[in-house]
Amino acid sequence: MAPRTVDLRSDTLTHPTDAMREAMAKAPVGDDVYAEDPTVNELQEMAAELMGKEAALLVPTGTMGNLTAILAHCERGAEILVGDEAHIYVYEAGGASALGGVAYHVIPNAPNGELPIPALQRAVRPIDQHAARTSLICIENTHNRCGGAVLSLQYLADLKKFADSRGLPVHMDGARVFNAAAALDVHISEIAKHVTTIQFCLSKGLAAPIGSMVAGPKDFIEKVHRWRKMLGGGMRQAGVIAAPGMLALTDMTKRLHEDHENATLLAEGLSKIDGIVIDKATVHSNIVLFVLAPSDLSEDEFLVGLKQQHVRMIQFGPRTIRAVTHWQISEGDIRASIDAVAAVVQQGRSSGIISAMKHIGLLSNGYGNGRPASITKV
Amino acid sequence: MAPRTVDLRSDTLTHPTDAMREAMAKAPVGDDVYAEDPTVNELQEMAAELMGKEAALLVPTGTMGNLTAILAHCERGAEILVGDEAHIYVYEAGGASALGGVAYHVIPNAPNGELPIPALQRAVRPIDQHAARTSLICIENTHNRCGGAVLSLQYLADLKKFADSRGLPVHMDGARVFNAAAALDVHISEIAKHVTTIQFCLSKGLAAPIGSMVAGPKDFIEKVHRWRKMLGGGMRQAGVIAAPGMLALTDMTKRLHEDHENATLLAEGLSKIDGIVIDKATVHSNIVLFVLAPSDLSEDEFLVGLKQQHVRMIQFGPRTIRAVTHWQISEGDIRASIDAVAAVVQQGRSSGIISAMKHIGLLSNGYGNGRPASITKV
Amino acid sequence: MAPRTVDLRSDTLTHPTDAMREAMAKAPVGDDVYAEDPTVNELQEMAAELMGKEAALLVPTGTMGNLTAILAHCERGAEILVGDEAHIYVYEAGGASALGGVAYHVIPNAPNGELPIPALQRAVRPIDQHAARTSLICIENTHNRCGGAVLSLQYLADLKKFADSRGLPVHMDGARVFNAAAALDVHISEIAKHVTTIQFCLSKGLAAPIGSMVAGPKDFIEKVHRWRKMLGGGMRQAGVIAAPGMLALTDMTKRLHEDHENATLLAEGLSKIDGIVIDKATVHSNIVLFVLAPSDLSEDEFLVGLKQQHVRMIQFGPRTIRAVTHWQISEGDIRASIDAVAAVVQQGRSSGIISAMKHIGLLSNGYGNGRPASITKV
Amino acid sequence: MAPRTVDLRSDTLTHPTDAMREAMAKAPVGDDVYAEDPTVNELQEMAAELMGKEAALLVPTGTMGNLTAILAHCERGAEILVGDEAHIYVYEAGGASALGGVAYHVIPNAPNGELPIPALQRAVRPIDQHAARTSLICIENTHNRCGGAVLSLQYLADLKKFADSRGLPVHMDGARVFNAAAALDVHISEIAKHVTTIQFCLSKGLAAPIGSMVAGPKDFIEKVHRWRKMLGGGMRQAGVIAAPGMLALTDMTKRLHEDHENATLLAEGLSKIDGIVIDKATVHSNIVLFVLAPSDLSEDEFLVGLKQQHVRMIQFGPRTIRAVTHWQISEGDIRASIDAVAAVVQQGRSSGIISAMKHIGLLSNGYGNGRPASITKV
Repeated sequence: MAPRTVDLRSDTLTHPTDAMREAMAKAPVGDDVYAEDPTVNELQEMAAELMGKEAALLVPTGTMGNLTAILAHCERGAEILVGDEAHIYVYEAGGASALGGVAYHVIPNAPNGELPIPALQRAVRPIDQHAARTSLICIENTHNRCGGAVLSLQYLADLKKFADSRGLPVHMDGARVFNAAAALDVHISEIAKHVTTIQFCLSKGLAAPIGSMVAGPKDFIEKVHRWRKMLGGGMRQAGVIAAPGMLALTDMTKRLHEDHENATLLAEGLSKIDGIVIDKATVHSNIVLFVLAPSDLSEDEFLVGLKQQHVRMIQFGPRTIRAVTHWQISEGDIRASIDAVAAVVQQGRSSGIISAMKHIGLLSNGYGNGRPASITKV
Repeated sequence: MAPRTVDLRSDTLTHPTDAMREAMAKAPVGDDVYAEDPTVNELQEMAAELMGKEAALLVPTGTMGNLTAILAHCERGAEILVGDEAHIYVYEAGGASALGGVAYHVIPNAPNGELPIPALQRAVRPIDQHAARTSLICIENTHNRCGGAVLSLQYLADLKKFADSRGLPVHMDGARVFNAAAALDVHISEIAKHVTTIQFCLSKGLAAPIGSMVAGPKDFIEKVHRWRKMLGGGMRQAGVIAAPGMLALTDMTKRLHEDHENATLLAEGLSKIDGIVIDKATVHSNIVLFVLAPSDLSEDEFLVGLKQQHVRMIQFGPRTIRAVTHWQISEGDIRASIDAVAAVVQQGRSSGIISAMKHIGLLSNGYGNGRPASITKV
Repeated sequence: MAPRTVDLRSDTLTHPTDAMREAMAKAPVGDDVYAEDPTVNELQEMAAELMGKEAALLVPTGTMGNLTAILAHCERGAEILVGDEAHIYVYEAGGASALGGVAYHVIPNAPNGELPIPALQRAVRPIDQHAARTSLICIENTHNRCGGAVLSLQYLADLKKFADSRGLPVHMDGARVFNAAAALDVHISEIAKHVTTIQFCLSKGLAAPIGSMVAGPKDFIEKVHRWRKMLGGGMRQAGVIAAPGMLALTDMTKRLHEDHENATLLAEGLSKIDGIVIDKATVHSNIVLFVLAPSDLSEDEFLVGLKQQHVRMIQFGPRTIRAVTHWQISEGDIRASIDAVAAVVQQGRSSGIISAMKHIGLLSNGYGNGRPASITKV
Repeated sequence: MAPRTVDLRSDTLTHPTDAMREAMAKAPVGDDVYAEDPTVNELQEMAAELMGKEAALLVPTGTMGNLTAILAHCERGAEILVGDEAHIYVYEAGGASALGGVAYHVIPNAPNGELPIPALQRAVRPIDQHAARTSLICIENTHNRCGGAVLSLQYLADLKKFADSRGLPVHMDGARVFNAAAALDVHISEIAKHVTTIQFCLSKGLAAPIGSMVAGPKDFIEKVHRWRKMLGGGMRQAGVIAAPGMLALTDMTKRLHEDHENATLLAEGLSKIDGIVIDKATVHSNIVLFVLAPSDLSEDEFLVGLKQQHVRMIQFGPRTIRAVTHWQISEGDIRASIDAVAAVVQQGRSSGIISAMKHIGLLSNGYGNGRPASITKV
């Protein structure tokens, strides 16, 4: 029998738990386009309350959650202030511009995932016929391409203060925001209170098979509702995915710290391997980014070698590899992965490790700045 | 105990069957963004084969299916030829224009749901800087606002011939196309072969909780895939909705003729009620449209009266009411509904039925032309 | 020496007068992007006052005037109620949808150019997630494809009353609205007072080389200003075209009745020609549409034949020809044109004039409904 | 009599010359929508030949030239690689996104106006459903916000090589490209040959009152033609602006070196003023950017003070001022301007000039990076 593969490519790969499968099978349902699905209604109320927002709405994906939020916040001719490493900018196919007539006003992300407030200050455009209308600030928490970086509560408070002073709403792409809450050990509403609107996923670390939520003020959610319908996100008996979504929020949020511990364990293990460059201090949640030191071992060779060892990761930039922990990854899996990496690197190592120190610099200054040769599914 | 309500408002209200619930709970899943969900892959292959097309793709809703198809067929600045009663034009929120920069070139639907070919001939615009680029013909089958009208195979063949002569692709909004196949008693591919691309729903009469499919040539489906991602329809462990979707295609398609028989039964019963005007000849599938003869009984009063009798229908235009049959509606439910209508009309009837004949004219000339006072969920 | 050609193809062909050329050469100018062009400023004030509106803005073309007005009135996801024969719908390349995300909600034009109010009543969509947002009514006056039809003041008053009752603004494509004022023998503001906003051309019958104006409330014009800049209509020393534009408004508006008299003369002459079908009662301004009775003489043959006689007209639909009078066309030119038509038809006439009466029907019921084989520049 | 003001705010303020005014008054014209304006046709042929391109088209403004070019190069869902200081990105109101569904992929401009090729290499996105389609590289020459920087021929050759290797077209915003040719002392085609398409202005330094040109391959210009019509840039008797446009190309291009000499003279004069920080080496064409050293004198106070001395400039960023030379500015005007600046700074100077050196750093590292407090018309 083939050994089980330890799949660290993404937490989007998570399967629903047995409890979720049972919940799906038993969920009371109705037509959610008529707002008559009791399970969806319950999930939406639960989500709004958790976030401390007036209302929440179920959408099929995080991308649709972000897109509907942008469409609801912004008219044609608006622009959003967004990080150059943001999922919204890098991985959502340019949808805000392509579909919504909204321009990206790009701010370089700090390595810790922040959009520096002085940069935001400079970026807000005047009300002038030459300029797109600056209408929204978008942040991401935890920040995927910044290695799962967690935005500090202090930063969020400062950002809110700045945004309020300019009359700008703030939208959080919180695809993995429960990881941020777990990392900070605070209730999710302590994060959400600093932003006008938020999108978060029931899938990924929380393991629901399908679904994300958008939360915010009531009139905003009404607009999101309209755009969701237009985009084709108004599903029918959606209770079947809302039921596992509720378990995602009640049960699965409690165990995310385990994934973080495993990520830390992985980072520590990797840091001891000759040929791997990693700044352990940058690992705050369930994402681990590390760099292959200069050698003849290409990124592809490394990943194929790992796969032969029954471990999978993905490339995330030039010589940068990403591994993500989740509920199906145990401490034992982590140890096996460290061994596998060590073996592959050992095999492939050449004499050329000249300047790991330089690469630590590369790592700290923005390992995410190099665009991936091929986009890794995220 | 309250008597069960016979809910004829829409076939979108259908609940999944027990077999579907079991299938959901047991479905093998994977991350469909990585194309690794085995159940989704199986459904997509099954759907493509059924339709006789090269490829098919799962989308969360029929609206997204139509929208992605239009985006894949049309560039910015294109126009689609579409019926004035089409779901795409009336109920999809203007999405093709709002999001895709595609103009509606509106052709009045014939009462039988067709877009008359002479009208299409006149409508194709020349290649000229003054004109939008005519790029796609959209038809609907069965045709919701034309009372579930079924497009004849002869019409489809003629349309294809015309479209080919102009180099125009044809997209079918086949949300209820299996009802058309049942009504014509042909294999679904006998319908699909006349169109370039097709969208059809796994929900509605086929009872799956969530999901529609788009089918067509391989390169077209690749484009649909891209637009689906941008719109936010790229779901993760979508096998949980694909599993009931397969049962929709294998089991539920076999029983649609029962819904049609019930619709016919309903139309016959209604035609005998004084105060109801209905052209039985227009009932071809599971949708029944009828007109309240002139009286003091308003549409709302009629519907509320019915609801008190534990029967529900919806308004579909001025004095026009729609009832839809589906797997949860039995022959007994139909008889009870006829009685309920008779009772309510009897109660509300005034002396004012002056000109039912005039209203038959209204019915034949396009009962759907009057826009609903409030949009009925469809 | 070759005889001069009588060019009746369009009033867009008009050359500037000598006075206009002199005005151009002498105009004080400045940078209009800085709002420092004194001639532009003067023209804009004059135009606003003439129309009885708060403000007006110069744009390079009528198409940009209409487009900026639609963009200013409508957000992404809106729809406009517009005639199926409207210039905005037929000849502006689908720009409102392509560029602005605004859907066309198409209302069949009455032969007299009106959008029937009952049709508008049915067309206004409810506020519902399924529906585009009905946001604007667009009318055209005089109506090009309806043969230069002039909207009556009574219709405009009724339309305003209806629009106000629904909270909808009305935009008039008044490319030739001074022809309407001349035909009704009223001050232009008697027309403009019934609409929220208006676009009118300084070119066409008024003979300025370049330029149209948009007029309306101050906040609306501010929005138009912004969209004009984005579209690329913010010209620099635009005084050079504003100067002839002022003469268009002061001098050229006074003589439009002469063009109407010539059009009537032309219609009368044509009505006496065997093989020409024309309803004289439909000629109200400077546009004459007529039909070639059934014969072997094709539209192209007719037009080429005319050209050989030094007269030019254009095709405007199946067997429908358009002739337009303007300041460079004299009464003598009209007489020569009638003779030329008679000669060409005589030459080309076959025995086949079976049913001119049928064609009168065609003419009255909407000669404009047939799309032109090739778009005629308009 | 009030002394004449030396207006250095922009070269967009230039008035047409007497020869241009005469040419306007005498220009043969026709309807350019029918392609029958002989003067426009002559200008377009002249422009295409000058640039060494197959075809050229007249547009009302540079903004429309750039926008039509982007629309012609890019479909909905595309992205353009564009500098963070580019006019297209900063001053064109977000039009490519708002109207065209095209995303900005922003590359930080080097201080010399270049988009560094390694940055472009990293920026090209893979063909993947997560990514916008990288479709065009946009450069600007001379580069306004980089102080009139001139792109070197070597850079252009390298860029072309890179772009060709990726199958990407290059569009040059050459609003002031004749200034670049003058600065490099080469024929304009030596610049244009390195790019696929180019937009250049007849106004600005070349003094025509209205108009810009787009040049490129024939099929591209056909597309530009279509988008121009849709945007509302299809003017009628445009010969009246084409005639001065021809003089712009024949006469005015010959004297641009005088403006550059005056700019150099101005920079030299300013560099000797205590309280003004300027890097003379960055002045290559007719634009002079300089920094007000730290003092109590605000930007506004400086500009108002200057105006009282009959000299005008504009703010271009925090403590950054822009002055632009053109045909109406003489050497004497420059000397007067230097004296005026000296007087105002002397007046306003406080004891606080602590660290001019720091500001030289600011200047070199990108004085343009700070967004203007209010957009200066450009």
